[in-house]
Amino acid sequence: MNSVKSQRQVFSVALLFGLLLPLMVQASEPLPSWSDGPAKKDIIAFVHAVTDQTSKDFVKPAERIAVFDNDGTLWSEQPAYFELLFAFDEVKRTAPQHPEWKTIQPFKAVLENDHKALAATGMDGLLKIVGATHGGMTTEAFDDYVKTWLSQARHPKTGKPYTDMIFQPMLEMLDYLRSQDFKTYIVSGGDTGFMRAFAEKIYGIPPEQVIGTTFVTEFEYKDGKASIVRTSKLAHNDDGPGKPVSIDAVIGRRPILAFGNSDGDLQMLQWTAAGGGKRFMGLVHHTDGKREWAYDRDSKIGRLDKALDEAKSRGWTVVDMTSAWRRIYPFEPVVKEQMQ
Amino acid sequence: MNSVKSQRQVFSVALLFGLLLPLMVQASEPLPSWSDGPAKKDIIAFVHAVTDQTSKDFVKPAERIAVFDNDGTLWSEQPAYFELLFAFDEVKRTAPQHPEWKTIQPFKAVLENDHKALAATGMDGLLKIVGATHGGMTTEAFDDYVKTWLSQARHPKTGKPYTDMIFQPMLEMLDYLRSQDFKTYIVSGGDTGFMRAFAEKIYGIPPEQVIGTTFVTEFEYKDGKASIVRTSKLAHNDDGPGKPVSIDAVIGRRPILAFGNSDGDLQMLQWTAAGGGKRFMGLVHHTDGKREWAYDRDSKIGRLDKALDEAKSRGWTVVDMTSAWRRIYPFEPVVKEQMQ
Repeated sequence: MNSVKSQRQVFSVALLFGLLLPLMVQASEPLPSWSDGPAKKDIIAFVHAVTDQTSKDFVKPAERIAVFDNDGTLWSEQPAYFELLFAFDEVKRTAPQHPEWKTIQPFKAVLENDHKALAATGMDGLLKIVGATHGGMTTEAFDDYVKTWLSQARHPKTGKPYTDMIFQPMLEMLDYLRSQDFKTYIVSGGDTGFMRAFAEKIYGIPPEQVIGTTFVTEFEYKDGKASIVRTSKLAHNDDGPGKPVSIDAVIGRRPILAFGNSDGDLQMLQWTAAGGGKRFMGLVHHTDGKREWAYDRDSKIGRLDKALDEAKSRGWTVVDMTSAWRRIYPFEPVVKEQMQ
Repeated sequence: MNSVKSQRQVFSVALLFGLLLPLMVQASEPLPSWSDGPAKKDIIAFVHAVTDQTSKDFVKPAERIAVFDNDGTLWSEQPAYFELLFAFDEVKRTAPQHPEWKTIQPFKAVLENDHKALAATGMDGLLKIVGATHGGMTTEAFDDYVKTWLSQARHPKTGKPYTDMIFQPMLEMLDYLRSQDFKTYIVSGGDTGFMRAFAEKIYGIPPEQVIGTTFVTEFEYKDGKASIVRTSKLAHNDDGPGKPVSIDAVIGRRPILAFGNSDGDLQMLQWTAAGGGKRFMGLVHHTDGKREWAYDRDSKIGRLDKALDEAKSRGWTVVDMTSAWRRIYPFEPVVKEQMQ
């Protein structure tokens, strides 16, 4: 009888702890790197509305799909998309196997760091560089190349590994959403295989939740050895209208939250906004030339023009990086107070 | 004090129940519709090996990817793929909007139930029928058409709704795998949108885990109304080598378990088998002409020839439907004992 009673007491303590723990976790303030301004308020209000079972806007966990652009939304994208810098470095690394590159464009320009000549080759030159560095190997080999590059390459301005140049406030937002049973996806113009090489490690986003630009691949099978070989033929360009198209093709559900930073994200935001019920549409506005980069309407990379107008007219959440983010990168010290 | 004590008692009972429930569930035998034969033994041994933390073959939950073909593996596929029967019915339903179909093939043959003339139009005719019934509408409208058809159409032999002609033993296997933290996917030659219309309801497989044949889609946006419009241009044929290709593109991880029933699943099984560590490769062998259909090497639909040879020579699990399955469809009575 005594032992039953003491067992009961142990159970009760364990149970009380079990009941209290979620409350304690919830009590810790989400989004600590966000200033107490309108953007943070919008995010929290939205999450409360769709997760509160008594709310008219309640959304079942299975339907809590959140999509994020990558370049400029989850990590920086200046002075050029990091994937492009990878491609340039890969041209240099593999140049010994392609002696002809010394004399033909756009490779000659890359090897000679001739930005002007490179720019002159335009989109056609760019596609050749991407084709030469992203195709003609197995998906596993490509994954290795990206991981090796990420472990060695350093950003020209900050001197940091590219995978350190991720936005601390967005990491907190991803965590916060997942703690509320959201499924977080990347939907980006970047190559799917390129992003999968780091997305799980730095964002906690597993490969099956990474959607991006894809190239045609082929199954090869020889002597019991199987591989998927990447070609340089474009299969899907995951930019602009390509984003809602890939969301529908891969996820098959309409997101209730979408976050981007450029006109290339506009259709994804429109597609999200056009669903029934409560929705969250967000844009990162790169206004902080001191801590990051300041650019919008006239930028060649991450141009934000039409989407900014539409966001303002429709009341979407525009995140003014300067005032909304107390800290930008995880390697920066925590700022206690910040003017708003 | 008294109320605290009674509260404690309520807690204790609740807690005991909470502790016992998982044990009780675990104690109930998995796969009750499977005979106690080699196939059931193989499945359970594999699941134990990869989920036991002390096993050398342990696989982390995130990497427990299981892929299943649909036609002939999760539901029947005779006398023709059910999706094709849907397409024929759709031709008839929409014929009033296409008076020209009365005189041109392959539509004339469908409208007149002229199997011989239809067969004569070959693959070209088939693609025209699929194009006319699967393209030119929004993905939401297509989803509605499929659901409406499924709710009304009946199988010519059994008189049952098509969604009842699913394999009870495979439903149990899907449940069993998910209870062991596997992520279950469909990877099928069927149209992704067609399968998404029922996969969650009948198999518990959500839209984002349905991979199939896809057609090019387009984003349309007008006056704040957004839609994804299906075209009849093939984007990806998810059969044969197309299966490992789509698995790599969409999931980005190699499965540790694959189940099919025809030569169209061979490359998916090879891709799964070629990964490191313990793997499970399974084939449903349609041997039961009495309860279902008996066909393999010479069948036009679900031809199982090369894959059967490879399964036998490599020791993959071949499920002899007659002896391995005590019950085929959920609407059949439970059979207590079955000769093996």
